[in-house]
Amino acid sequence: MAGGTKRLPRAVREQQMLDAAVEVFSRKGFHETSMDAIAAEAEISKPMLYLYYGSKDELFRACIQREGLRFLESVAPAGNPLLSPHEQLRTALEGFLGFVDAHRNSWQVLYRQALGQQAFASEIENARERVIELTAKLLESSAKHAEPGTNFDIVAVAVIGAGEAIADSVAAGRIEVAEAVDLLDALAWRGLAGRKPGAADTAETDKLPE
Amino acid sequence: MAGGTKRLPRAVREQQMLDAAVEVFSRKGFHETSMDAIAAEAEISKPMLYLYYGSKDELFRACIQREGLRFLESVAPAGNPLLSPHEQLRTALEGFLGFVDAHRNSWQVLYRQALGQQAFASEIENARERVIELTAKLLESSAKHAEPGTNFDIVAVAVIGAGEAIADSVAAGRIEVAEAVDLLDALAWRGLAGRKPGAADTAETDKLPE
Repeated sequence: MAGGTKRLPRAVREQQMLDAAVEVFSRKGFHETSMDAIAAEAEISKPMLYLYYGSKDELFRACIQREGLRFLESVAPAGNPLLSPHEQLRTALEGFLGFVDAHRNSWQVLYRQALGQQAFASEIENARERVIELTAKLLESSAKHAEPGTNFDIVAVAVIGAGEAIADSVAAGRIEVAEAVDLLDALAWRGLAGRKPGAADTAETDKLPE
Repeated sequence: MAGGTKRLPRAVREQQMLDAAVEVFSRKGFHETSMDAIAAEAEISKPMLYLYYGSKDELFRACIQREGLRFLESVAPAGNPLLSPHEQLRTALEGFLGFVDAHRNSWQVLYRQALGQQAFASEIENARERVIELTAKLLESSAKHAEPGTNFDIVAVAVIGAGEAIADSVAAGRIEVAEAVDLLDALAWRGLAGRKPGAADTAETDKLPE
């Protein structure tokens, strides 16, 4: 409603618009979302919305930037150099899934929606590549006695993929953060334990947990 | 080129159009793809393309249907009742990743592109849910002595998520199918082995492979 535009500080109004945009983008997807719908959700006039954010693309980009910053703040404690590499990985998992749980729409927009848009996908893909590299390094530093030939990069790809799928379950309210952290933590190390030399050729995988 | 429309059987021409569509969709994404670009790629006139497939949506849907059927054919051998549940899972992984390796553009279109479009996402999501359920059942049938309280559904979500990420690496030519199958196979069983009773509360994850 245009009538609802009270005199608010610019910063407050910006956050309200971004909140509304994240909400509508996560519900309808980027292409189905109109500036009208976001203006209605934010209880602001459409001209005002365009005044602050020149286009839907620009508004979407602002959403990604804000949510991306929140995400980084959530995982930052993992960078504490006093933690062991294993503690760092676990702290990162807790930060990541805690963020997803607390900001379920953000995860939708920041990740699933943004990856579907060519204009934004490469930025997100690059960030994702850096996360995979970092994960591979943490795994490598921790597994001091890993078998030679262990491909930490590939294990990291698998762990991050598992993490994304589990994050969707967390965002959907189907799994608790603590349980998710334990599962992914176990998967990462057990996955490494499974990489015996020559396993890639000889399929040394019949030792079931029985 | 409109001049290139020789007299071909309808079925052949349809396949050529779908080949061209999959190629262009995978390269440019759904929204950036024009019917002009697909017609050019198929060396056919745009009116002819519209005659066969009434709209870009319809053409995209036809692509998904064809690639989906190919995908099902690839994993069908896993349904052989003479295989043990573990062999079934492994055969499914081989079929799945073999398909991705042989049809790299299909994977892009069928999965990453389709999931980004609201109109198609729910269909793909439903198929994905069924795959997760089936995976959970195979894991449960195989792990005869799994600890009580093991949440097979969540482990299946993680395994499928890891599988999707690994499939992207296979499609990008960064990992061999055989190595990918071994890793995912190991992750699935080791992930189960990691689910000790109470692990969700007590974080029994410090036993690193050292």
